Amino acid sequence: MQTLTVELADRSYPILIGAGLLDQGEYWRRYIPGRQVLVVSNDTIAPLYLQRTLAALDGLQTAHVILPDGEQYKTLEVLNRIFDALLDARFDRGCTVLALGGGVIGDMSGFAAACYQRGVHFLQVPTTLLAQVDSSVGGKTGVNHAAGKNMIGAFYQPRAVIADTDTLNTLPDRELAAGLAEVIKYGLIRDLPFLDWIEENLPALQARDPAALTHAIYRSCLNKAEIVGRDERESGERALLNLGHTFGHAIETGTGYGQWLHGEAVAAGTVMALDLSRRRNWLEPQDVERVVKLFQRAGLPVTAPRELATDDFLRLMAIDKKAKDGRINLVLLKELGHAVICDDTPTELLRATLDAFCC
Amino acid sequence: MQTLTVELADRSYPILIGAGLLDQGEYWRRYIPGRQVLVVSNDTIAPLYLQRTLAALDGLQTAHVILPDGEQYKTLEVLNRIFDALLDARFDRGCTVLALGGGVIGDMSGFAAACYQRGVHFLQVPTTLLAQVDSSVGGKTGVNHAAGKNMIGAFYQPRAVIADTDTLNTLPDRELAAGLAEVIKYGLIRDLPFLDWIEENLPALQARDPAALTHAIYRSCLNKAEIVGRDERESGERALLNLGHTFGHAIETGTGYGQWLHGEAVAAGTVMALDLSRRRNWLEPQDVERVVKLFQRAGLPVTAPRELATDDFLRLMAIDKKAKDGRINLVLLKELGHAVICDDTPTELLRATLDAFCC
Repeated sequence: MQTLTVELADRSYPILIGAGLLDQGEYWRRYIPGRQVLVVSNDTIAPLYLQRTLAALDGLQTAHVILPDGEQYKTLEVLNRIFDALLDARFDRGCTVLALGGGVIGDMSGFAAACYQRGVHFLQVPTTLLAQVDSSVGGKTGVNHAAGKNMIGAFYQPRAVIADTDTLNTLPDRELAAGLAEVIKYGLIRDLPFLDWIEENLPALQARDPAALTHAIYRSCLNKAEIVGRDERESGERALLNLGHTFGHAIETGTGYGQWLHGEAVAAGTVMALDLSRRRNWLEPQDVERVVKLFQRAGLPVTAPRELATDDFLRLMAIDKKAKDGRINLVLLKELGHAVICDDTPTELLRATLDAFCC
Repeated sequence: MQTLTVELADRSYPILIGAGLLDQGEYWRRYIPGRQVLVVSNDTIAPLYLQRTLAALDGLQTAHVILPDGEQYKTLEVLNRIFDALLDARFDRGCTVLALGGGVIGDMSGFAAACYQRGVHFLQVPTTLLAQVDSSVGGKTGVNHAAGKNMIGAFYQPRAVIADTDTLNTLPDRELAAGLAEVIKYGLIRDLPFLDWIEENLPALQARDPAALTHAIYRSCLNKAEIVGRDERESGERALLNLGHTFGHAIETGTGYGQWLHGEAVAAGTVMALDLSRRRNWLEPQDVERVVKLFQRAGLPVTAPRELATDDFLRLMAIDKKAKDGRINLVLLKELGHAVICDDTPTELLRATLDAFCC
């Protein structure tokens, strides 16, 4: 088991990473302050892991709520079912909301914990690679709105994150690949040695080798924690984590939530951001080619969806949260392993990238 | 104009109190950091003050949304209309949500500001006495759930509060009285000289004399700010502000939201809390009588609603946010002007009070 502390003053918390943690409640029950726990899961994950989770919580007062699986259910309306469950169980201010599932369950459970009685405890048990390396760190919670992704939410930190690599054994290949997109991202923005390591260990990761997965999750969370620790509320440096996300969110929104996995959209969006970086003469063509090849080996898309045209992208990117007072902030690479935030990208270069990727 | 600063470290903000402030944008526009402002109001207040508010914001990019008036509309569903309006206007992270109305508008606007893109700026222009003396200070925002009042929400501070006493000229007498219940509460819990002042100046307050109102608002906010400044998240002392509220929330929930005004329920609930304090031998019968007389002069109820029985109260009070791990915390008075938080009230005394007030 590896442990990492996310340093956020009085909101610091540990991430426990390893094989078999789910059944080892003795390691993580100490992070549940009260006696009431609501387990929130979805109809894919609950049949696999709910009973084991409840068994690990034996002796506490537990309740659970099972939400439908999918990004399209990440809405205020479905969120309300978590509040219904908390109130049905008559849970008070000292209760804990435990998220058992992927990013959608984590985002909604965390937001519910942030809002229930103006804030109760929150524990994350992420069961996808994406959730383990991304939403484990940063405290971003929330739901989507018909007009935009993650438009409604809160910054809210968990008491602890329990990342059991064994839960990845039931993860479909497509979702493992989507998680790898974010792992690769950490290498690209600030950790070139990690990028080298991923290129070398991709087969072990794809074979779900526990040691390789533990290292990849640890190093990803470490990189993210260093950034978030310096910029919790995303006023500056934290935006580096959005490499590929402005394009990616446009893809997710433009194709309708649930068509593309988040990590898939981020992979394609990252290639677009790298193409734009090349047009700014910061990257060499072979840098872009190297990353395209890695994404392809990982089974990730490297082109934009057919149905979106250049103007669709421009329209969708303007409403993205990263847009401030009308200007588009983009994360680009000065070189591999070194991301920067740019608000001065010439529109004709952006159009050139979009034209190259769109029909 | 009187100004008071609510001291909360990097979230400190001013309360401006006086006659005619609404039209004097030059005093308060400095508290709007960006250029985008969404004014949230209701269909009672908007016809009276929306155009004047928008005029005071001349030159900024404004939009507005008008919600139905009433506590029964303080729901997640209606909250979503604020998000719709923000997204329709394509407002970004730098925007400000301005609440123009009473407590319901303030609570919902503040919660929307807390959640929109995980937090935007918030400005309050309260137009009821209750909102001016209560929700102006403390940062409590949120919506109701069918199973309980204010069950979903956030602590979120405004950039400033603008309390224009002239807006009270259009306030119905019943709502002015409801606001006076909270004003009287500050005297009861910690400011006996203020209680004396209210008894003397009640006619001036009821005649809406601007100087008397300005003083009452200032002194109420000062008392609340001192408490909140020491206990922002309601872990201890802040609970003193809940004098009458545990009984009061039971009345509001038990009769269905919107039947009793919040201040009316607090007045009746306060008399119940004082009766219980007398049964604990802390107050003399004449202390209770003095307060009953003041509430009656103010036009406030001093008895529980007929439809609630003792057991209804006990059931409703157990789900109240003030209940922790099943124990009921109650705010009682050791003497007039000195409130304490008690978790050791003998159930038979509580029952005796409830029996005395219920059919």
